[in-house]
Amino acid sequence: MTDALSITRDLVRCPSITPADAGALGVLEKLFKAAGFETHRVTFSEAGAADIDNLYARIGNTSPHISFAGHTDVVPPGDEKAWTVGAFSGEVKDGFLYGRGTVDMKGGIACSAAAVLQYLGQHGGKPREDGTGSISFLITGDEEDVAVNGTIKLLQWAEARGEKFDHCVLGEPSNVETLGDCIKIGRRGSQSGTLYVEGVQGHVAYPHRASNPVPDISRLIVALSEEPLDHGSAQFQPSNLEFTSVDVGNPATNVIPGQARAKFNIRFNDRHTQGSLRELVEARLAKATGNRIKAHIVWEPSNANVFVTKPGAFVDLAVAAIEDVTGRKPELSTSGGTSDARFISNYCPVIEFGLVGQTMHQIDERTPVSDLEKLTKIYRGILDRYFA
Amino acid sequence: MTDALSITRDLVRCPSITPADAGALGVLEKLFKAAGFETHRVTFSEAGAADIDNLYARIGNTSPHISFAGHTDVVPPGDEKAWTVGAFSGEVKDGFLYGRGTVDMKGGIACSAAAVLQYLGQHGGKPREDGTGSISFLITGDEEDVAVNGTIKLLQWAEARGEKFDHCVLGEPSNVETLGDCIKIGRRGSQSGTLYVEGVQGHVAYPHRASNPVPDISRLIVALSEEPLDHGSAQFQPSNLEFTSVDVGNPATNVIPGQARAKFNIRFNDRHTQGSLRELVEARLAKATGNRIKAHIVWEPSNANVFVTKPGAFVDLAVAAIEDVTGRKPELSTSGGTSDARFISNYCPVIEFGLVGQTMHQIDERTPVSDLEKLTKIYRGILDRYFA
Repeated sequence: MTDALSITRDLVRCPSITPADAGALGVLEKLFKAAGFETHRVTFSEAGAADIDNLYARIGNTSPHISFAGHTDVVPPGDEKAWTVGAFSGEVKDGFLYGRGTVDMKGGIACSAAAVLQYLGQHGGKPREDGTGSISFLITGDEEDVAVNGTIKLLQWAEARGEKFDHCVLGEPSNVETLGDCIKIGRRGSQSGTLYVEGVQGHVAYPHRASNPVPDISRLIVALSEEPLDHGSAQFQPSNLEFTSVDVGNPATNVIPGQARAKFNIRFNDRHTQGSLRELVEARLAKATGNRIKAHIVWEPSNANVFVTKPGAFVDLAVAAIEDVTGRKPELSTSGGTSDARFISNYCPVIEFGLVGQTMHQIDERTPVSDLEKLTKIYRGILDRYFA
Repeated sequence: MTDALSITRDLVRCPSITPADAGALGVLEKLFKAAGFETHRVTFSEAGAADIDNLYARIGNTSPHISFAGHTDVVPPGDEKAWTVGAFSGEVKDGFLYGRGTVDMKGGIACSAAAVLQYLGQHGGKPREDGTGSISFLITGDEEDVAVNGTIKLLQWAEARGEKFDHCVLGEPSNVETLGDCIKIGRRGSQSGTLYVEGVQGHVAYPHRASNPVPDISRLIVALSEEPLDHGSAQFQPSNLEFTSVDVGNPATNVIPGQARAKFNIRFNDRHTQGSLRELVEARLAKATGNRIKAHIVWEPSNANVFVTKPGAFVDLAVAAIEDVTGRKPELSTSGGTSDARFISNYCPVIEFGLVGQTMHQIDERTPVSDLEKLTKIYRGILDRYFA
């Protein structure tokens, strides 16, 4: 059975809680092989992390090359007794398919697989009749946890093989309330750092002989928190800096401490690069210190740079396919947390469109069966337009 | 030998590092007994602290009653090899008596003992010829460490016996640079507390769904640090609030924390009581929160209230005795850290006057032998005037 509901149920019945695969990739590999794909199972390792299996499948050898990406691993089910049906039973009830991973994101993968198999079935098993064009699947089992042995390495492995990607659709649950309400076309970058303020330790009874870093770091925290980094861009909401911790750890009530530190994280938009952002924050810090406070920032390494797939032909084509099926014009969104799209964006334009995310990571994660059918039609519409 | 140098040397040779007594109280008790004092050795206990021996000695039964207070315990010598002479050898070199405790404060005790014995020797062994008046010594072995089994309990014990004190001289090293430059007539109070700010925990990518307590506690720290508590009083420098720590302890870079806390200590003058001070700080906090920030303070218990011995007859008498011997008019100071005077002030007016503090707690703690002679003369001058 190659309809989306059947494939989703087969996948849900594999309890593939990261790092377990539990047969999930095998379900897909079998389908792709039967449809004529060249498939590769690749296992990646990293010290301190579990080995993870990945699947790459491609049909066709030339551009244009569209890839569907996703992950088969899921988060734990939580209290299984609290579920209406078994978290890994794949049961349908009142028009809803229940189960861990139904929306995040086994359902999305199943819809893309069903759409591609349907498309190929109606086009003589080839992306295009003239033999051009390629379709591939980039499927990992490592997204929900540390994500070091998944998409990031699978893309490196593919590049080393000479694979070129032209466009990618990541089937993460992008819709907020209703299927068709949202395409994610980018994500803000993320950059963390630690602010250190050096004072002069001393006795609280003699404050003039000391320099207290606590009010000083407080002044810098207020200054850096209050001034906006920007006012947003065409595709993005404003960048934002949040202090996530401030710590001194001084147990002595009669001692003015010598140092204070504060950790912060910045979510930044396409008005900045990591480099320009750091320069901006350093300049503001220098101003806030007033040449009086001794402060410096230690920046964390970051692999989450800002990216955006600018509106244009590829995005338009997805929007048209969505409108066709749902009657809704999706918002082009760049909000929310991180996903594997940050890695894919280094290789080709990528959009995220999948099911409705409301129940993801919750008890009774579920999707209307009708959404599986509609999402399959949307992916099919994308393929039709892409290879037209 | 009942001169100050001899008594100091005898005391320094007892390595009475808190809680050890090492015979120090016995040196004094023997002298006082021989001069006709009624002496009491009392040992106090407290769970979690070492038992400590104390000495109370009194001659005479009526008022006016002047008491000399002090402690025979000392801080550790540090690196003994770094000393010019042995830290507990009591050696004189180039006119200086070296040794741990010479200025803090075995020297001060020795001078008061020498002055009292000299005075009694010249007054028929009585404070006054008519039989009125009393002189006593309140000596503890528990001042340098936790100070729970020392003066505070010795005074309670004495009160329970019906002892009434009219005036007290505490022989702590009150002088900053030269003998005669400073009498301590009071100390600021000390009050500690912890400021808590409650926010709403959330993901850094969705700051509008969270409320970050880090910038908020920073605003409160700045507000409470910047506005002076007062501008000082006749006897005191301005009260001062210092934040000694601010802590969140959030290890997650992508999480806005739910709470932040900051510890502070206030040194306050006689414009405040503990109660009025707490009210003032609470009112300022309420204003700084702007009815927006959820904050509260947990106050620490404190036994260090502000006290001052107001200028008047007793202080004048001490000033006159100091001027007579040194030619200097001492500053009436209330600065610096805490001492047992905070306990004594609950029973009678107390002043602190002793040797020069410069080398206290250091390697090569030492006093000019001539200062021992002068301080003995000053204490003698106080006695002469007190019983005149």
